[in-house]
Amino acid sequence: MKRVAIQGGLGAYHGIAAENFFVGDEVEIVPCTTFKDIFTGIKKDPNLIGIMAIENTIAGSLLGNYDLLKESKLPIAGEFKQRVSHCLAVLPGQTIHDVKEVNSHPIALMQCVDFLETIPGIKVVEHEDTALAARDIATKQLKGVAAICSVRAAEIYGLEILARGIETNKHNFTRFLIFGNKWIVDEIQKDEVINKSSIVFTVPHNEGSLSQVLSVLSFYHINMTKIQSLPIIGREWEYQFYVDVKFDNYERYQQSLVAIRPLISDLKILGDYPEGRQSEN
Amino acid sequence: MKRVAIQGGLGAYHGIAAENFFVGDEVEIVPCTTFKDIFTGIKKDPNLIGIMAIENTIAGSLLGNYDLLKESKLPIAGEFKQRVSHCLAVLPGQTIHDVKEVNSHPIALMQCVDFLETIPGIKVVEHEDTALAARDIATKQLKGVAAICSVRAAEIYGLEILARGIETNKHNFTRFLIFGNKWIVDEIQKDEVINKSSIVFTVPHNEGSLSQVLSVLSFYHINMTKIQSLPIIGREWEYQFYVDVKFDNYERYQQSLVAIRPLISDLKILGDYPEGRQSEN
Repeated sequence: MKRVAIQGGLGAYHGIAAENFFVGDEVEIVPCTTFKDIFTGIKKDPNLIGIMAIENTIAGSLLGNYDLLKESKLPIAGEFKQRVSHCLAVLPGQTIHDVKEVNSHPIALMQCVDFLETIPGIKVVEHEDTALAARDIATKQLKGVAAICSVRAAEIYGLEILARGIETNKHNFTRFLIFGNKWIVDEIQKDEVINKSSIVFTVPHNEGSLSQVLSVLSFYHINMTKIQSLPIIGREWEYQFYVDVKFDNYERYQQSLVAIRPLISDLKILGDYPEGRQSEN
Repeated sequence: MKRVAIQGGLGAYHGIAAENFFVGDEVEIVPCTTFKDIFTGIKKDPNLIGIMAIENTIAGSLLGNYDLLKESKLPIAGEFKQRVSHCLAVLPGQTIHDVKEVNSHPIALMQCVDFLETIPGIKVVEHEDTALAARDIATKQLKGVAAICSVRAAEIYGLEILARGIETNKHNFTRFLIFGNKWIVDEIQKDEVINKSSIVFTVPHNEGSLSQVLSVLSFYHINMTKIQSLPIIGREWEYQFYVDVKFDNYERYQQSLVAIRPLISDLKILGDYPEGRQSEN
């Protein structure tokens, strides 16, 4: 039995991704109100596992979640790439002509912006979670209000689906990271091959300093799958780098970290983990 | 007289940044509903100048705006880094205890999340623009509703300011890009020293391919100030790169582009421009 803390309610994409990641295991979803609450939850209950969206093919990286993970020092256990397809759900009997307001998570709203433009005058209201937006419509019997949520959430809360696949881009994947205390991560990773890592570091603002670091990594046959420079809070327009790397040889990867250390500062390993699967649909 | 199209209404941060960028010139602000509308506006009126937020020290890059700029082929004329400080504004006579709902642009809402957490049960409603959220409260005489907007917007629309500097992080800068048709850009850049460029390119998913490109740039004394890998829509988890570079010698920069061209594909120059100033406050 895996107990997994997610932001959002039952039927949220985080829960769907958790079940897909732990396929074959029994999963108990522990709903949390905010991403921060997941970390508070793990502090109180050290055996709890966390799952959190980290980037989306449309919205890009969730910078705040990177910060939370870095500050928590909880290692990454793995990743899962979940296809995200939204529907528009309402109380049974309501039609598209009744809908005056739509509630959902800001990123889901952003992903459906083209669909929303087809409903003139609709009021767009942020909700903390896609699934909880659906639940609120059901429990408060909100007429004239639609949720953008997963088909699963619409079904759980007994809503009627007015439109499916309303996301602008059909290649809409979200990458989720699974994390927890070290002994939990060790257990999850047992018998797995570690071939990926997420690291953060700062380089001096000199010409070529990043290219030196990346050259050294490439000499060690470390392949970069993602890079993002991030403003350092308080030092505007200076940057630190979030980098994801892939490798075949874990020892070589460890050696490459030793080799780049003198060229960088503030190196933090967010986690070494096996490259994740992608959901079928 | 500069006519500058912005997303948002009078008192929006885009307009404040435009006036700061063109300091000394008379500026006429042309409000638009969406970022897309700025580009439609320039198509209809080729002398119009556009300004658009491209990254924020808190929210990161605005990926959609990068796409708009790339598709439009309109070159960047320059950049301006604007300090963004929000206030909470209401109808005169209303107090914080009356506020049941807050309206603002999603990024402004995100930037004030800690402040909003101090108002229990407040309903957070997305608005297309910070300044228009303020205007709506004034014109519709909305009681119980507050806007998160600039002090300027609160003043323009006669609202009372309940709290100032409510953004979580006080080092909150937004980088704006100014763009337009080539002859307009040439005029804006007259007598300016070009020392910065924003480029986009794709590299094959081979080990070390990005590090080769960055090495070549560093051999030519081109300094990278920003890098971001971006998912390529339709080719999930493959990436293209948005890179900002700085240089002292324009000819060397041109030569470096010739040198990296065989290593990359789909190179697009979003613009060559002078490094921008930063607002005082």
